[in-house]
Amino acid sequence: MRMLTGDRPTGKLHLGHYVGSIANRIALQREYESYFILADLHMLTTKNTREDIERSGQRARDLVLDALAAGLDPERSVFYLQSAIPEVTEINTLLQNLVTVPRLQRIPSLKEMARDAGAAEMPYGLLGYPVLQAADILCVKAHVVPVGKDNAAHVEVTREIARRFNVLYGETFPIPRLIRAEVPTLVGTDGRGKMSKSAGNAIYLSDSPEEVRRKVARMYTDPNRIRADVPGRVEGNPVFIYHDVFNRDRAEVEDLKARYRAGRVGDVEVKTKLAAAINAFLDPMRERRARFEAEDGLVERLIVEGTERTRALVKQTLHEMRSAMGLTGVYTGLLRAAGRQPASV
Amino acid sequence: MRMLTGDRPTGKLHLGHYVGSIANRIALQREYESYFILADLHMLTTKNTREDIERSGQRARDLVLDALAAGLDPERSVFYLQSAIPEVTEINTLLQNLVTVPRLQRIPSLKEMARDAGAAEMPYGLLGYPVLQAADILCVKAHVVPVGKDNAAHVEVTREIARRFNVLYGETFPIPRLIRAEVPTLVGTDGRGKMSKSAGNAIYLSDSPEEVRRKVARMYTDPNRIRADVPGRVEGNPVFIYHDVFNRDRAEVEDLKARYRAGRVGDVEVKTKLAAAINAFLDPMRERRARFEAEDGLVERLIVEGTERTRALVKQTLHEMRSAMGLTGVYTGLLRAAGRQPASV
Repeated sequence: MRMLTGDRPTGKLHLGHYVGSIANRIALQREYESYFILADLHMLTTKNTREDIERSGQRARDLVLDALAAGLDPERSVFYLQSAIPEVTEINTLLQNLVTVPRLQRIPSLKEMARDAGAAEMPYGLLGYPVLQAADILCVKAHVVPVGKDNAAHVEVTREIARRFNVLYGETFPIPRLIRAEVPTLVGTDGRGKMSKSAGNAIYLSDSPEEVRRKVARMYTDPNRIRADVPGRVEGNPVFIYHDVFNRDRAEVEDLKARYRAGRVGDVEVKTKLAAAINAFLDPMRERRARFEAEDGLVERLIVEGTERTRALVKQTLHEMRSAMGLTGVYTGLLRAAGRQPASV
Repeated sequence: MRMLTGDRPTGKLHLGHYVGSIANRIALQREYESYFILADLHMLTTKNTREDIERSGQRARDLVLDALAAGLDPERSVFYLQSAIPEVTEINTLLQNLVTVPRLQRIPSLKEMARDAGAAEMPYGLLGYPVLQAADILCVKAHVVPVGKDNAAHVEVTREIARRFNVLYGETFPIPRLIRAEVPTLVGTDGRGKMSKSAGNAIYLSDSPEEVRRKVARMYTDPNRIRADVPGRVEGNPVFIYHDVFNRDRAEVEDLKARYRAGRVGDVEVKTKLAAAINAFLDPMRERRARFEAEDGLVERLIVEGTERTRALVKQTLHEMRSAMGLTGVYTGLLRAAGRQPASV
């Protein structure tokens, strides 16, 4: 059974990504053959300057290295670069006739993406984001797709397109099942909304122990607690949210919470222990990262080999699609009548 | 200087097509290197059953044979099958981010096409019809596109997309110029709107002399003229519209009109002379058709060779686009770092 996951190569992974999706993918890779898309064509829907595109190669490498460090197993996950598989764009073009504009306009996350990208009007390609996603999912005939709150609606479109294709042209695609992943949003270090690169409130999986200590030291806590002997609020306090998620020493966390509520602990102690906990959490990732980085070109080789392997699969899927649609026969018929070998297609 | 023209392979050409576009293309082929697209992917936006698709091979042949019979010179026109050039779909996918949904929604002809196709809601692919057209026009770097009333608005989208691409990524495409062709609409034989296959009121370029006589004999004329000695109306009368367009004997036409107005000519004489005039108009086409049909596989060879020639050009264009966007470098950089030859892309 195949699973498709992946990301746009827009930046390094942070703790929010880990909690929101990577942890779940690591758990699922035991059950499924995983395809991990480096979705650079999707990036073009909102970021399409030459500068953005040129950066995406390095960002794809960083993303894969982050994912490997986090625990994705290269024996179980096939990483591939979307733009290096042109057959995906043909599948995209063929699927575009199987969904309507109003259907796509009912997906709220696309409007948010357009707004976030500063687009005054919805780009046509962005409205078709779920169609290109359908091409990604169907081109490897994925059986399952782990989804969060936002992209569940996108993958519903894939299911509709797959069903429509099967009805029109005969059984070709498995209908991909949505695995609803628990996707808790992690608050940023500034306590002002979710962790994100653009908000500058992120701790990255690749941050050094020193960077982690520095970022944690500056974290937002209860603003009413001006001295260590003032009782503080634990609930909704980002420092304690992080303790709950990352600190494995539950007794230490309970002790800190009790003393914080009673005004018997300083912020410095709470934060020092949090930084230590996050670093303990990140240490195995740092070790794995060092191992993957040690061999020159290893990450790139994984991407190239994964892309070649995926492309072979996608070519096969496209061939099945074209045959089912009756499209293959159109040109091979002309070739034959012209006295050519149809194999030359 | 290159020109792009073409049609969806949806049926045989009739006199309405000739008057509306083919005559103009024949005149323009003397000035431009012509690419003639057999736009079967465009057909999928409104007709996408397996039956439709399977028929399109034969229809593409018929279309080319009709065009050759009508006078398109195979030395000056390159015929190609759109779906056999997959690079067009990649160009399509890349261009989709350079135009907005509201811009496309302002084109009235797309709504008409959706309605004519019986679609309750606008298919996403149909809204993107002008983007795929932009891919067709830009993939061969056409300098001019002859347009009628409807597709002028489509080609304006191509010009905007080409300008946007050049601004974002550097000068890549010539901005195609619209040649506004006079496109008189020819009324159908039933006098009830324009000539079209679906209305069953068409005289085809491939009709035999006998079929032409039969169709003309049943043509709609002035309904108030119940006998030959009743004065009739010439204006708006399809029989006289056809005489004006197809009968080269101007004196005969003026004589018939005068006698018709005076009630001194029978319908039979008017129609017999019209059928003779249309047959005289079609005779050179019949001769050319016979010549092209004589050589087995000739039409198919023209399409296959034209497709190969066009594909080489499109590959070159796509390569320039990807290089300008910075997209080529993304994968070649990974290949190099992986110790591979980038030539293997």
